[in-house]
Amino acid sequence: MADVRVGIVGAGFMGETHAEALRRTRGARLVAVAEPDAARREELARAHGVERTHGAAAELFADGGVDLVVIAAPNALHAPLAEEALRAGKHTLVEKPLALTLAETRRLKAAARESGRRLAFGENLVFAPKLVRLRELARDAEALGTVYHQRHVFQTCGPEGGWWLDPAAVGGGALVDLGCHAVETCRWLAGRPEARAVTARVRTVDAARFGPLDDFAVLWIEYADGSTAQCEVSWLRPGGEEVTAEVFGTRGLLRADLWKGMGLSAFTETRFASVWEPSSGWVHPEWDWIWNSGYPGSTQNVVDAILEGTDVEETVDEWEAVLEILLAAYLSAAEDRRVELPLDAPPEALPLELWRAPSAEDR
Amino acid sequence: MADVRVGIVGAGFMGETHAEALRRTRGARLVAVAEPDAARREELARAHGVERTHGAAAELFADGGVDLVVIAAPNALHAPLAEEALRAGKHTLVEKPLALTLAETRRLKAAARESGRRLAFGENLVFAPKLVRLRELARDAEALGTVYHQRHVFQTCGPEGGWWLDPAAVGGGALVDLGCHAVETCRWLAGRPEARAVTARVRTVDAARFGPLDDFAVLWIEYADGSTAQCEVSWLRPGGEEVTAEVFGTRGLLRADLWKGMGLSAFTETRFASVWEPSSGWVHPEWDWIWNSGYPGSTQNVVDAILEGTDVEETVDEWEAVLEILLAAYLSAAEDRRVELPLDAPPEALPLELWRAPSAEDR
Amino acid sequence: MADVRVGIVGAGFMGETHAEALRRTRGARLVAVAEPDAARREELARAHGVERTHGAAAELFADGGVDLVVIAAPNALHAPLAEEALRAGKHTLVEKPLALTLAETRRLKAAARESGRRLAFGENLVFAPKLVRLRELARDAEALGTVYHQRHVFQTCGPEGGWWLDPAAVGGGALVDLGCHAVETCRWLAGRPEARAVTARVRTVDAARFGPLDDFAVLWIEYADGSTAQCEVSWLRPGGEEVTAEVFGTRGLLRADLWKGMGLSAFTETRFASVWEPSSGWVHPEWDWIWNSGYPGSTQNVVDAILEGTDVEETVDEWEAVLEILLAAYLSAAEDRRVELPLDAPPEALPLELWRAPSAEDR
Amino acid sequence: MADVRVGIVGAGFMGETHAEALRRTRGARLVAVAEPDAARREELARAHGVERTHGAAAELFADGGVDLVVIAAPNALHAPLAEEALRAGKHTLVEKPLALTLAETRRLKAAARESGRRLAFGENLVFAPKLVRLRELARDAEALGTVYHQRHVFQTCGPEGGWWLDPAAVGGGALVDLGCHAVETCRWLAGRPEARAVTARVRTVDAARFGPLDDFAVLWIEYADGSTAQCEVSWLRPGGEEVTAEVFGTRGLLRADLWKGMGLSAFTETRFASVWEPSSGWVHPEWDWIWNSGYPGSTQNVVDAILEGTDVEETVDEWEAVLEILLAAYLSAAEDRRVELPLDAPPEALPLELWRAPSAEDR
Repeated sequence: MADVRVGIVGAGFMGETHAEALRRTRGARLVAVAEPDAARREELARAHGVERTHGAAAELFADGGVDLVVIAAPNALHAPLAEEALRAGKHTLVEKPLALTLAETRRLKAAARESGRRLAFGENLVFAPKLVRLRELARDAEALGTVYHQRHVFQTCGPEGGWWLDPAAVGGGALVDLGCHAVETCRWLAGRPEARAVTARVRTVDAARFGPLDDFAVLWIEYADGSTAQCEVSWLRPGGEEVTAEVFGTRGLLRADLWKGMGLSAFTETRFASVWEPSSGWVHPEWDWIWNSGYPGSTQNVVDAILEGTDVEETVDEWEAVLEILLAAYLSAAEDRRVELPLDAPPEALPLELWRAPSAEDR
Repeated sequence: MADVRVGIVGAGFMGETHAEALRRTRGARLVAVAEPDAARREELARAHGVERTHGAAAELFADGGVDLVVIAAPNALHAPLAEEALRAGKHTLVEKPLALTLAETRRLKAAARESGRRLAFGENLVFAPKLVRLRELARDAEALGTVYHQRHVFQTCGPEGGWWLDPAAVGGGALVDLGCHAVETCRWLAGRPEARAVTARVRTVDAARFGPLDDFAVLWIEYADGSTAQCEVSWLRPGGEEVTAEVFGTRGLLRADLWKGMGLSAFTETRFASVWEPSSGWVHPEWDWIWNSGYPGSTQNVVDAILEGTDVEETVDEWEAVLEILLAAYLSAAEDRRVELPLDAPPEALPLELWRAPSAEDR
Repeated sequence: MADVRVGIVGAGFMGETHAEALRRTRGARLVAVAEPDAARREELARAHGVERTHGAAAELFADGGVDLVVIAAPNALHAPLAEEALRAGKHTLVEKPLALTLAETRRLKAAARESGRRLAFGENLVFAPKLVRLRELARDAEALGTVYHQRHVFQTCGPEGGWWLDPAAVGGGALVDLGCHAVETCRWLAGRPEARAVTARVRTVDAARFGPLDDFAVLWIEYADGSTAQCEVSWLRPGGEEVTAEVFGTRGLLRADLWKGMGLSAFTETRFASVWEPSSGWVHPEWDWIWNSGYPGSTQNVVDAILEGTDVEETVDEWEAVLEILLAAYLSAAEDRRVELPLDAPPEALPLELWRAPSAEDR
Repeated sequence: MADVRVGIVGAGFMGETHAEALRRTRGARLVAVAEPDAARREELARAHGVERTHGAAAELFADGGVDLVVIAAPNALHAPLAEEALRAGKHTLVEKPLALTLAETRRLKAAARESGRRLAFGENLVFAPKLVRLRELARDAEALGTVYHQRHVFQTCGPEGGWWLDPAAVGGGALVDLGCHAVETCRWLAGRPEARAVTARVRTVDAARFGPLDDFAVLWIEYADGSTAQCEVSWLRPGGEEVTAEVFGTRGLLRADLWKGMGLSAFTETRFASVWEPSSGWVHPEWDWIWNSGYPGSTQNVVDAILEGTDVEETVDEWEAVLEILLAAYLSAAEDRRVELPLDAPPEALPLELWRAPSAEDR
């Protein structure tokens, strides 16, 4: 099947992030970018080998060689541009927030239905590998018992300026910017139950920087299944971004920290079915261990070397150096001394034989 | 350019791991597997859509439709099989240890040179994304000053049995099994300096399980550049695998924990050029943040939906649910009450307007 | 000045805890205990060398040899017993909650005023050494900027039974039991500002165990100084008690975990005046470092040995053993070999001289 | 029994530390200080209410009103001063290192024996509450199985100058300064087995600051019981002092971090007898929980208030403020609204009754 041809609208920070994400997406090819700022537009095009560049989004929507449009423009333009792209027959992926009012949202629903095209909004956290693993663990009813509560924190140091601080362009403050991440992540983790009530406190603490936008909010959400969720968002956090998710069950609990410890920890009174040893009590679940161990990188390195005619990273010469050190280590242990390298008379024996030599027998 | 066609020798745990890694390698296609155990062989072939299966490695080496061979057999077979594969004209990737003696290693060097084919050994840790980031940080001389020492720990609960406990098949104990990871990782992190001396202590603590193999070792390596490295390996560690790397500089230090906290932490008296805010003092460096944030997963989901005709994960209906919660939150805050959902009269205003309504003016 | 003579009412878990605390209180002497259960009463008396035991609190209140009464009875008895003790002329320390209604509280205020005696309630957390240090850091306006929010978590696995689950005896659920800790701790940390409004969500998740008592609650408190506080309490937490306090300022933040990591961490964009190096960015403030380092224990051991005629822990023989190891270490490093103990010819030189011997000159 | 009267020799950092420790030692009274520097001497005397000050140690040794001498002078003076103090009939506590040569050590042994006085050296870490708890856990053979190894790290940023960098006064570098802590701590944790062999690597990395003193060392100690210990010391560590102790058993392991996380963590395949729930798998053992909870501080506050005629910290007025917040919280939850304080009509009901009022019945 042919690759999906993608055009990005907006070459700012998020446009660049989506371009990078597309580079790592099987079956996708970035072919066009639209951005009014010529310098940014050309820089993104150059960095990603994009064939066609446009000054206006409308030109990109008219481009017959584009199947999927990614919209990474200021918030207030998300819904109008998405509607235009759908009506032009494009599949459309929109940075969050997808739309700023319910009326806009309903127009998008109609446009998507009528166009027969895919419409998605960019809630990246539900694809974050660590949170994907968290959801798998959250569904282990044996380990967690009944899940009755979640807590989500998304706190940053806030936007520096630009349209992010223009109320008309951004639509809301930390609650819109970060709250939609937190709300959707907890809906998705909980299996998307219906929400029945919300109680919230919202503040503007740093009015000098953010007024009239809100910069600090706490939400308490009640779901139809009787469970609750708490979302805490802020633009006031120094010391680096804080993104955490906690799931509370009657028999266990889960905690993921996306950035600081980059960790995943969990407790169960019983046993997690999908966690390696130890799987009971406090555990440290891995996630995507094959990727985290570097195996795809290792095979990629060899495949690239073959395709590009270069050498591999881990050659037999490197092994020789490693093996000499291991042999020296066994010798050092066997003979209770420091062993200098290179070895004068490189032993042909197995490492084990060096250590188990007669002189070391009484060990 | 045509894909690289890959054959795997060995369908045990590591054979399966390499098959999974190949699935995530651009430009590679797994086409054949060789394994004497028919059940394992067919299971791996089925799971990965492998076309051709062989009972013997020699048959796979004779397969003209294979460009690259991955060897995942017992340790003692690594070098003989690799030599055979090279002599059959195959590029070859070998699970560690690449060879158990220096003589074997030299034969492989000759075979690789004469064949003109790539020969790599599978040191996956030098491709582990977190350690790749660690190396980038380790090279920040402004932040670290002079790096004078490293410390590497690789400790597991040890092999359960099989050929892993057969001295002839395995070649050595924890020092061979885990030590080659630790030694190569610290060579690579240090920029592969020449080793000048080794002092080691090696023990067999649990002789009932592991004798005559070693199960606990500490190595002290001295490099030509004056820096040192310490490697600690063990088959005796309960509570889950421990893989950590520490880099000590005169002005800063780095620490990566591959599994437990899955974290990366660093300190500098000056400033890390590649770390986001905060970049001085104790910092929490991210690694591969685009992948960890889920962006490739997000675009992949949309591309797959287009190619396969399915729906996306984050639809406009999901957004509608999120937006209703955000609007309810602003309303709750503005009116100091719990707001029930669904909203009776969905507001068409921007979220911010709800909160900044006259009734909330004195906030 | 003569010691304060103390009587405890209640010999359950908290009675025992207070007895132990008194043992570590300068100027206090536990002389009496009142407890209806004879076995518990005698056990506490025996364990703490208490002279006089009583079956009824009234007998203890009538005891002229008691200056201070500590009340550790079921919640509903706290206020009535405290009032009785004050009217009997005793200073009174009461386990939390001090009283279950505002009417009771006002009667106690009158009783304390009329008696001229001290009345205290046992909010131990404001004396917890780590939180005392947290408050000191919270007042570092240079480091934190304006403190605009606090977050307090106090979550346990809940009471097992007894009067703790009897609504009439206990007065409330997790919100009374743990909420009063959280509320008072954050008032104290904030410098006791006046509270202006409260928004709360309260649940009974595990009605089978706790109904009709609440077992999960979140409070949002608004203070007159514009700052806010969030308190989260629960009787549903498996995996061990969670007690944390977080303080959020515009330039920095603080976090204390009372039990799990037993840690204190803080961040500032500027500098903490009272934190040792490093004092900027993310820091790890010590607290009561002299106690945590063991110095009082060390001097206590020597003083006890003198007073009791026993030997000290760290004798000169122990030093000899340590010094031999240090000397052997320098020798080992100087001569690049393992050194066996005891040393054949114990060197009389300084450690440094061994290492700096001619043979090691080129090091 | 009368208090032990103590005199301190040396009013530098460690003299001050010992004075503070003595303040927290039952049965001890600091009565004299000897220090050649008049300003330091008078400052310490003033801060601790010391009656008698001396310019020379000999004057203090001649002081008949001193029972115990604490020596906190430069390293090279420790043994000579201790011998003089013992010969003057004083009990003697000496800062580490107790003596710099084996000859000095043997003279001290003789002096102690002949004087009949106590001689102790100040290894404070074996009294550090967290390590005391670690040792208790280390002896839980059911939980740990056979303990076969320990690892101790003591790393600082090194001394700034003064006699600490004078080879004749200090006797050795990091290995003497920090190594004696690490060596004695692991001897004590292991039950003081006999050492049979030492292998060590010692370096001077920062010769400009520390040469000819060593600043980095690793020791490998072999004990008669077959277990081993690793000590790692350094004067080169930026980012704050690192003091950790790890104990490795065949069924479990322990880790204490004295400063950074100030934590204690442990793992067992079975169960720790002395750890609260959870007691299996990975656990977070508390230590000295009564002190860490603040109970002694709480009772001390009341006793001091009585003795000094001041008021207590936690008065009934504070309770009233807390209770109002709790009542408001129950009201807020029952009526689904924000509740303003002070309450207009303070309810006389129990907290629980507010929440369980008819209006909240369907909750």
